Amino acid sequence: MKILIINGPNLNLLGRREPGIYGNGDFESYLEVLRNAHKNTQIDYFQSNIEGEIIDTIQRADETSDGKNYDGILLNAGGYTHTSVAIRDAISAVQTPVVEVHISNVLARENFRHISLIAPVCRGSVMGFGLDSYRLGLLSFLK
Amino acid sequence: MKILIINGPNLNLLGRREPGIYGNGDFESYLEVLRNAHKNTQIDYFQSNIEGEIIDTIQRADETSDGKNYDGILLNAGGYTHTSVAIRDAISAVQTPVVEVHISNVLARENFRHISLIAPVCRGSVMGFGLDSYRLGLLSFLK
Amino acid sequence: MKILIINGPNLNLLGRREPGIYGNGDFESYLEVLRNAHKNTQIDYFQSNIEGEIIDTIQRADETSDGKNYDGILLNAGGYTHTSVAIRDAISAVQTPVVEVHISNVLARENFRHISLIAPVCRGSVMGFGLDSYRLGLLSFLK
Amino acid sequence: MKILIINGPNLNLLGRREPGIYGNGDFESYLEVLRNAHKNTQIDYFQSNIEGEIIDTIQRADETSDGKNYDGILLNAGGYTHTSVAIRDAISAVQTPVVEVHISNVLARENFRHISLIAPVCRGSVMGFGLDSYRLGLLSFLK
Amino acid sequence: MKILIINGPNLNLLGRREPGIYGNGDFESYLEVLRNAHKNTQIDYFQSNIEGEIIDTIQRADETSDGKNYDGILLNAGGYTHTSVAIRDAISAVQTPVVEVHISNVLARENFRHISLIAPVCRGSVMGFGLDSYRLGLLSFLK
Amino acid sequence: MKILIINGPNLNLLGRREPGIYGNGDFESYLEVLRNAHKNTQIDYFQSNIEGEIIDTIQRADETSDGKNYDGILLNAGGYTHTSVAIRDAISAVQTPVVEVHISNVLARENFRHISLIAPVCRGSVMGFGLDSYRLGLLSFLK
Amino acid sequence: MKILIINGPNLNLLGRREPGIYGNGDFESYLEVLRNAHKNTQIDYFQSNIEGEIIDTIQRADETSDGKNYDGILLNAGGYTHTSVAIRDAISAVQTPVVEVHISNVLARENFRHISLIAPVCRGSVMGFGLDSYRLGLLSFLK
Amino acid sequence: MKILIINGPNLNLLGRREPGIYGNGDFESYLEVLRNAHKNTQIDYFQSNIEGEIIDTIQRADETSDGKNYDGILLNAGGYTHTSVAIRDAISAVQTPVVEVHISNVLARENFRHISLIAPVCRGSVMGFGLDSYRLGLLSFLK
Amino acid sequence: MKILIINGPNLNLLGRREPGIYGNGDFESYLEVLRNAHKNTQIDYFQSNIEGEIIDTIQRADETSDGKNYDGILLNAGGYTHTSVAIRDAISAVQTPVVEVHISNVLARENFRHISLIAPVCRGSVMGFGLDSYRLGLLSFLK
Amino acid sequence: MKILIINGPNLNLLGRREPGIYGNGDFESYLEVLRNAHKNTQIDYFQSNIEGEIIDTIQRADETSDGKNYDGILLNAGGYTHTSVAIRDAISAVQTPVVEVHISNVLARENFRHISLIAPVCRGSVMGFGLDSYRLGLLSFLK
Amino acid sequence: MKILIINGPNLNLLGRREPGIYGNGDFESYLEVLRNAHKNTQIDYFQSNIEGEIIDTIQRADETSDGKNYDGILLNAGGYTHTSVAIRDAISAVQTPVVEVHISNVLARENFRHISLIAPVCRGSVMGFGLDSYRLGLLSFLK
Amino acid sequence: MKILIINGPNLNLLGRREPGIYGNGDFESYLEVLRNAHKNTQIDYFQSNIEGEIIDTIQRADETSDGKNYDGILLNAGGYTHTSVAIRDAISAVQTPVVEVHISNVLARENFRHISLIAPVCRGSVMGFGLDSYRLGLLSFLK
Repeated sequence: MKILIINGPNLNLLGRREPGIYGNGDFESYLEVLRNAHKNTQIDYFQSNIEGEIIDTIQRADETSDGKNYDGILLNAGGYTHTSVAIRDAISAVQTPVVEVHISNVLARENFRHISLIAPVCRGSVMGFGLDSYRLGLLSFLK
Repeated sequence: MKILIINGPNLNLLGRREPGIYGNGDFESYLEVLRNAHKNTQIDYFQSNIEGEIIDTIQRADETSDGKNYDGILLNAGGYTHTSVAIRDAISAVQTPVVEVHISNVLARENFRHISLIAPVCRGSVMGFGLDSYRLGLLSFLK
Repeated sequence: MKILIINGPNLNLLGRREPGIYGNGDFESYLEVLRNAHKNTQIDYFQSNIEGEIIDTIQRADETSDGKNYDGILLNAGGYTHTSVAIRDAISAVQTPVVEVHISNVLARENFRHISLIAPVCRGSVMGFGLDSYRLGLLSFLK
Repeated sequence: MKILIINGPNLNLLGRREPGIYGNGDFESYLEVLRNAHKNTQIDYFQSNIEGEIIDTIQRADETSDGKNYDGILLNAGGYTHTSVAIRDAISAVQTPVVEVHISNVLARENFRHISLIAPVCRGSVMGFGLDSYRLGLLSFLK
Repeated sequence: MKILIINGPNLNLLGRREPGIYGNGDFESYLEVLRNAHKNTQIDYFQSNIEGEIIDTIQRADETSDGKNYDGILLNAGGYTHTSVAIRDAISAVQTPVVEVHISNVLARENFRHISLIAPVCRGSVMGFGLDSYRLGLLSFLK
Repeated sequence: MKILIINGPNLNLLGRREPGIYGNGDFESYLEVLRNAHKNTQIDYFQSNIEGEIIDTIQRADETSDGKNYDGILLNAGGYTHTSVAIRDAISAVQTPVVEVHISNVLARENFRHISLIAPVCRGSVMGFGLDSYRLGLLSFLK
Repeated sequence: MKILIINGPNLNLLGRREPGIYGNGDFESYLEVLRNAHKNTQIDYFQSNIEGEIIDTIQRADETSDGKNYDGILLNAGGYTHTSVAIRDAISAVQTPVVEVHISNVLARENFRHISLIAPVCRGSVMGFGLDSYRLGLLSFLK
Repeated sequence: MKILIINGPNLNLLGRREPGIYGNGDFESYLEVLRNAHKNTQIDYFQSNIEGEIIDTIQRADETSDGKNYDGILLNAGGYTHTSVAIRDAISAVQTPVVEVHISNVLARENFRHISLIAPVCRGSVMGFGLDSYRLGLLSFLK
Repeated sequence: MKILIINGPNLNLLGRREPGIYGNGDFESYLEVLRNAHKNTQIDYFQSNIEGEIIDTIQRADETSDGKNYDGILLNAGGYTHTSVAIRDAISAVQTPVVEVHISNVLARENFRHISLIAPVCRGSVMGFGLDSYRLGLLSFLK
Repeated sequence: MKILIINGPNLNLLGRREPGIYGNGDFESYLEVLRNAHKNTQIDYFQSNIEGEIIDTIQRADETSDGKNYDGILLNAGGYTHTSVAIRDAISAVQTPVVEVHISNVLARENFRHISLIAPVCRGSVMGFGLDSYRLGLLSFLK
Repeated sequence: MKILIINGPNLNLLGRREPGIYGNGDFESYLEVLRNAHKNTQIDYFQSNIEGEIIDTIQRADETSDGKNYDGILLNAGGYTHTSVAIRDAISAVQTPVVEVHISNVLARENFRHISLIAPVCRGSVMGFGLDSYRLGLLSFLK
Repeated sequence: MKILIINGPNLNLLGRREPGIYGNGDFESYLEVLRNAHKNTQIDYFQSNIEGEIIDTIQRADETSDGKNYDGILLNAGGYTHTSVAIRDAISAVQTPVVEVHISNVLARENFRHISLIAPVCRGSVMGFGLDSYRLGLLSFLK
């Protein structure tokens, strides 16, 4: 199995950013733990603050250079979740199934975070479990 | 570990009801599978079409007759998800953490299903993975 | 033919309740007249103030104990018409066709009565004719 | 008894127009059947695509040339249902009771069809039963 | 001076229509009184229930057959006041100034009557004075 | 006849204020002209920028010190037109009929000027005729 | 005097539930104090989490088994306050006057608590005084 | 105890103003009764139609000239209830607790009366009991 | 090829009407140019200010008297674009493809022009190019 | 240079009022500091809780008794910022440029504070810097 | 003539992406056909998934390296059409006229696609004709 | 002191872009003036049209390569002000205080510019003073 985790804007600051909301752990350490626990799964990782690079990366999941497409994408689009029609369109455009992931419970925060433009075109959504949301999202591909 | 699954209105019809949306499996068979896969966890189950009985059941999770409270509730409130302030208040009122579960991707359906009154007071939400949403919700308690 | 009439909350008070809106007749007397006029049709009747019991009853219309399902349901969901996603889901879940009935012209009353959550999943709607709305709804099954 | 059926815009195309929504029958054949089934009732018919001609016709129902006013109007205002304050005012202005009729279940279609400007001033509404909605509307005058 | 009064839908029923709102007088008698009181002013009158004929008539006010354009139009567009972009566009398209007139106080009635699409392109508006609104509108041209 | 004109905030600046919208004339000169043209009518005048003083003045119209109540009030509430429930309540509280007057066509200006809280409780409204709106409002009392 | 207090969903948890909002006292102790302070008044009490049972109880206030109707109902409908058209209709349907009571200041909490569907049909409302709201509501019947 | 009652705009007209809504009694007589019934409580009274004077008075409740602050304010802000951010800010700015009082059931009247800007910063609200609302509000301070 | 151009209300005034928005040319001269440039295409033309006549004409495009249906309709519905469900329904009802045309950029004008009820059922839309919009619309049929 | 600072409702309580939001300093001390730092600028000061007096003062800035108009106004309209069309109109009516000042970041507070009716007619706005907002606003006139 | 075609996010996937909506052809082949058919016109092409690169490219159209500015831009902004104020501002900032192009009929799709932020500042819009929309947009520059 | 000015999309065109709104000066010349006037302050400058690069730059303000963090950021996010949750999150994520700056009075322009997603998380905002807004923003750090 080959899974791609895509993190959107400001998620490179995990561990430093608003720890009351996002926790104290940085993502790289967490990723290490996740990979160790699922050694048979190839877990690739990409982060960008640029909306268009996230779109590029989603598109490439279908057409990897080694000819083996990803079996799934875990996407935490961060602030773009609520504003990006373009990322939504990228998800619709590819065959690879995408699962939406959020660290915090976005529905318990400001109103503008209550709308997810990407959720309707994702296979499913997992949110509110802290970094553990990524593990649960991953497990959705590992039935 | 002791987990309570609460299913709301019409979820007793799973397997018979709109299979295009909810799948062909009935919940009891699925529950059997789930229990077999997690033998160290006590998984109790309750279903009701009556909003107030769901509230009663949430309240009792804190004060079980055997003195051992539940460690967590998996709640699929069905149609009450979108309309019930009273269930929301029950979740706020108890100590037991509640995880919201949905079989379908409710955000990809009618507008009135896009608002979850209970999500903001739940620990987290899992939706869109079919019956597998219950497994993922369960795993959120089994880190 | 076998038809089930389901009346929702406060319709047990017909004849006593706001006669300016709902008229002076009680429902039982009216039912008697209706049955006499349609002797070849079995007309069963159920009333409850509890949303979940209405859902239970709609579900059972498909799986009657005598093995003969109802050919149709006449549903006056009263105040739940405007708030119940759960009853709507029950209607979608069963095979039996449901016709929505209202005694008063709900669209000529308060704003919150202008939205019917159940109408879109019913075969049709009849409203505003007083108790005669039930007869017209019944006749829709007796073409 | 003397009843006037008024059909609004595009209903002259019945049988040819979007048969998935409006059925295959043309209105003239249906009218024949209806008249045969109710020989004691004079059923007149008017169709126009012009809003103002519908208003003219509603006004004349009170002041027929033969001195015998209509006992009732069955009005399917088509697309004007959702936009015409002027037809609403005509209904309020005349003594003849008006019953609103729709072939399709307009509440299950696009949002702009969910508002009926004329329903609040009609005696009642019947919708969703296909052409049979006219028969039910007619029967509301024939108690 | 040459003034054109245009009355929209259902205003031909004045005196018969909802007298609680519109009064008991018919418009022709009132017009007689108005003409007698302003003998130096030519007051022409047009009524139609058809939106497009009102537009035709507004357009012709600029290009009368006798070569003498109207100095002003008094327009009571009735129910079209609230729905007609097309009449608004006709008013914008002609040179003749248009004054909006209403018999009733439309702002004290149903919500959908609170918006006037034509008011923003009229010279001014007079409403709520019963038939006397026409006299006041006329006097606005007779300074 | 005894009429009271009440001008609200900033109308003391007429002639100096935004002449493109409000014209070049000051109100006192205009009032002189109006009084000369209607010598049999006592026309009193009050202006204030203070919402509560306008309320005080409306209340006193019913209970004048000389025992002769006003026959009518012409009220141009200026900016308070769109925001003052309290002035609306004062109008409802007194017997003296109030006519709403506006110099500009408020419906052709910013959105927040499109709502008049006081119009629904006034006898009628005149707007858009420049200072001539006051004359027309006055004439509504002098039939 | 004979008064019925009806408490809606989750109010059975008073003293245990969100003490920052609802206080530390349980309702039974409070009721004891209230009864002791008003010994000439019969104060009955009913609590349910089920919407329909609250409706049942409101209906029965008019037709008590001992033939003596209640003089008043104090209703704290909890979360149903904001969502239940059916309870509103029950209040409209009975003769017994109903006073709305809230422990917390619902208008200072989440937006969805700012709308009370039942307030418009109650005699009056008391809210925000903690458990003392019940005493004040009771005193409204004891003038 | 020392309580200040503040009445806002048009409440000086009680007994004369819209008796169907506000009753026939004038406030001074009522105040007399209230004072007689609570002889140990100093009840001061202030009324103004001017928003800013109400703010002045609320501010002074904290800093009375005799050095004894008020224990509470009963505030019926009348029409300013729905529009005054400034009065709300005054309530927030002072230590003295404020209780909101309304004679009529404002939630059963026009839509613009359904929003209270001041309720969220008051200790509690009492409305709909006629003049008796003041007594109940007073009793909230006299536990 | 056989194309029908339908112009809605006030488009008969082109060249005279608001030249800042609609340009100086009249439509007949433009039509001449268009026909000369596309001599192999039969270009018919219809204009009406009456909504219902536009509907009639759309309906007839499918059933021309000479038995040769139109290959396409260019429709500039003018002010009806934003208000007519009935014209929308006519477009849906016929087989002939309809292309929406606007002279001005309606999205850069008043808010009420931003909604096109007919666009969703047209093959495509061309707007903002002045009279040249008709040529572009025509070319969409002449690939 | 001659600058006028106008403070609206409740700003006379600075230093005492909600120090978490508005800080601990009173305005008079701050004004002293400001004047000392800008000795070549005449800084006048006015505060009122009355909307109309703020309007009066804005109007007088153009027509000072000493014949020397103010070069600028710093206006902190407090709660009237969000509700006063009348103050907005006063700003539009005078020549003196007005700069909007706020102590707190109003956009980070309640929703009703997010709309400034006066901002669109001010030269500019400064907000969120505590009392320092006044200095920055002053410096905008001292380039 | 020198024209620049700019394609926004996901349009690089044409031919592979949702063929039911966007067709089967890839854009490069189409571009070839377009260039062959218009040999006298220089047609340059740019695609990016990054909003800011689209802005960069629009800006450069005015200041090309060879000193010859573009005569026009055809812009299909894809998902950014509905969300990008920044692209709108770029269009306003340059002299080169921009024509908006869409392959699908965006008004017939999801609600969030019904708003075009860029349309109001474009010269015109063409949508719904599949890839042919580009040809029609191109022809708008080639009169 | 060390301050970073970040300019968002299209602000590289200052002096060329819509001079009626943004003035004639280019930003580099202005920056020169600003630096000369504040020689003790290090003023760095960054501009990008790419949302994600603005986020990158905000993030780096906390972790500069020379180890000396910025004391403040002046951010003019241009069109992203109204649409970017991601930039807002970046501001929340860093320690460096951010001041929002706008050249024009955005509240006096189109509706979609009235909402600032970033204002609530900035220390303060300065807008409407032309390029002088940057000087005022800078001075907010130089008390």
